[in-house]
Amino acid sequence: MAERTLEEWAAAFRAGDRRALARALTWAEAGDGRAQRLLALVGGGGRRAHAVGVTGSPGVGKSSLVDRLAVALRRRGRTVGVVAVDPSSPFSGGAILGDRVRMAEAALDSGVFVRSLATRGRMGGLSAATGDAIRLMDAFGKDAVVVETVGAGQAEVDVMGLVDSVVVVLAPGLGDDVQAIKAGILEIADVLVVNKADRPGADLAVRELRQMLLLGGGRPEEADAGRVPGWEVPVLRTSATTGEGVEELADALDRHRQALAASGAGAARRLRAAEGALADALARTAVAEVRRAAPTMWEEAVRRLADGEASPAAAAHELWAAARGARSGGRAWTSP
Amino acid sequence: MAERTLEEWAAAFRAGDRRALARALTWAEAGDGRAQRLLALVGGGGRRAHAVGVTGSPGVGKSSLVDRLAVALRRRGRTVGVVAVDPSSPFSGGAILGDRVRMAEAALDSGVFVRSLATRGRMGGLSAATGDAIRLMDAFGKDAVVVETVGAGQAEVDVMGLVDSVVVVLAPGLGDDVQAIKAGILEIADVLVVNKADRPGADLAVRELRQMLLLGGGRPEEADAGRVPGWEVPVLRTSATTGEGVEELADALDRHRQALAASGAGAARRLRAAEGALADALARTAVAEVRRAAPTMWEEAVRRLADGEASPAAAAHELWAAARGARSGGRAWTSP
Repeated sequence: MAERTLEEWAAAFRAGDRRALARALTWAEAGDGRAQRLLALVGGGGRRAHAVGVTGSPGVGKSSLVDRLAVALRRRGRTVGVVAVDPSSPFSGGAILGDRVRMAEAALDSGVFVRSLATRGRMGGLSAATGDAIRLMDAFGKDAVVVETVGAGQAEVDVMGLVDSVVVVLAPGLGDDVQAIKAGILEIADVLVVNKADRPGADLAVRELRQMLLLGGGRPEEADAGRVPGWEVPVLRTSATTGEGVEELADALDRHRQALAASGAGAARRLRAAEGALADALARTAVAEVRRAAPTMWEEAVRRLADGEASPAAAAHELWAAARGARSGGRAWTSP
Repeated sequence: MAERTLEEWAAAFRAGDRRALARALTWAEAGDGRAQRLLALVGGGGRRAHAVGVTGSPGVGKSSLVDRLAVALRRRGRTVGVVAVDPSSPFSGGAILGDRVRMAEAALDSGVFVRSLATRGRMGGLSAATGDAIRLMDAFGKDAVVVETVGAGQAEVDVMGLVDSVVVVLAPGLGDDVQAIKAGILEIADVLVVNKADRPGADLAVRELRQMLLLGGGRPEEADAGRVPGWEVPVLRTSATTGEGVEELADALDRHRQALAASGAGAARRLRAAEGALADALARTAVAEVRRAAPTMWEEAVRRLADGEASPAAAAHELWAAARGARSGGRAWTSP
């Protein structure tokens, strides 16, 4: 059977064929331009879906909680897309564990589409793939898109900049809390969740977090256009095992979405995310074009850097100046 | 007292004034160009110091182990710089906990310089600051520079690409191991360490890791110029509390450094790091220059992206084409 054309995939996508969504997500993961071309074909304009981010340190039980949340949202009549962001190996270039086999409950329901994304983070690759995945799930008609990140590094914080509402998940025990603060993820929380509420120490963790929020640990008030005026970050107890607190989490997210729309903060957040996505895409374009146009200069600059004869900033400025100098017929650049 | 000129700081730096190193590290952290200009002034050519990276999930005891390792290296007569990389808040732009107060033992010794770095990761900012910090510690004359990262996200994996030898630290318990594999950090290990060896499960963890390595969990052999031929990743047991295994860790790092030099793999790793640093710096330059030269086009592209009317890649290509079109006097760009 011949491979379908992009137009055929777009038609299948519009008709609600899940294989077309899966294919487009594979393109997004690989940084293949067809993901964005398909998006242009299926149209759709502004985002309609509620994009929810779920993040936190390893081992706090994010995956099971996302599973429960997806089911709760389905019960409210909404279709749900889940994007599980998995940092991949820097050498093999792919996920080590492959697509996950959990999320059985949510995935069995055809109203829920679960997909893991594994991609590199350098120059916003992870953010770009996740942004495309959110747009694809949205264009496919999902009412809610839940983005789950493994870990709490900088790339994950960047990914959380793409969503409307951020849920930070912690587990009982001060160690995790301190790690969360160090990683700067407490500050980006719109909703805080203490998962594994059946474990000892859950009450203490909730009290500590409320105290931290009172002391100003939440989103800083000044100069943050994405802040929702008057929004008090709720601290919820959940148990992904028993389902405790999951309905309250869904309620809190609905309230947050309404507050975002009513205050205009949602639009400010989307502008900020767009600015980051544009900067990342321009960075990738510029580096690819310069390497293509001036491969010898590039190699030479890399060698000088490795030998400690130049600084990255100085070498980059030279390359950029050569790119601009090409206007007046500079010889440093090979012809296209 | 008047602020010193850059030349005066460079003279103090060359004279071994620790305040000059501290000031230069502050510039590196802020992305201030003076860090790289000072490096150019103090010269130094290629790297001499052995750069060692220590990474692993939160809570495995990396900081105390780095402290112990610094002391062990000092006992071998080497001067040591420690760079503790701390992801910072995306909003406040600074470390929440500030410079750490631990590492008491190592920091009391004037042969050890400890510094935490807090900076944003987008577009390689974290890697750039860390790279500058390594070069500064090296130019200051440190024999070894230990880079410690908090967490195990993509930005941290990128940072580990800057060093010569990577130590991945785990703690007993399968949960941590699986997390390490998921984050792709096991693959970048040159030395594996099971810390908290006094805890139950340490022997089991060591056995599991050795088995994983036998099954091919280490650096893949194919197409990795930075691989040291014949290097078998040692799995060590350490206890930062008792000091057990720390000498063996220092021995393993010495052996790895010799193997890097003898095989040429060290040079290949430094070329790869230089290429990443150049790409990041060029990306930052390109984005800054385009925003400066075409602010209206930039704003318009952001708005269209936020409204879902364009894809990041398409908008970036338009901006890039306009930058090149300026050669023939295109009107899209405001004059400089």
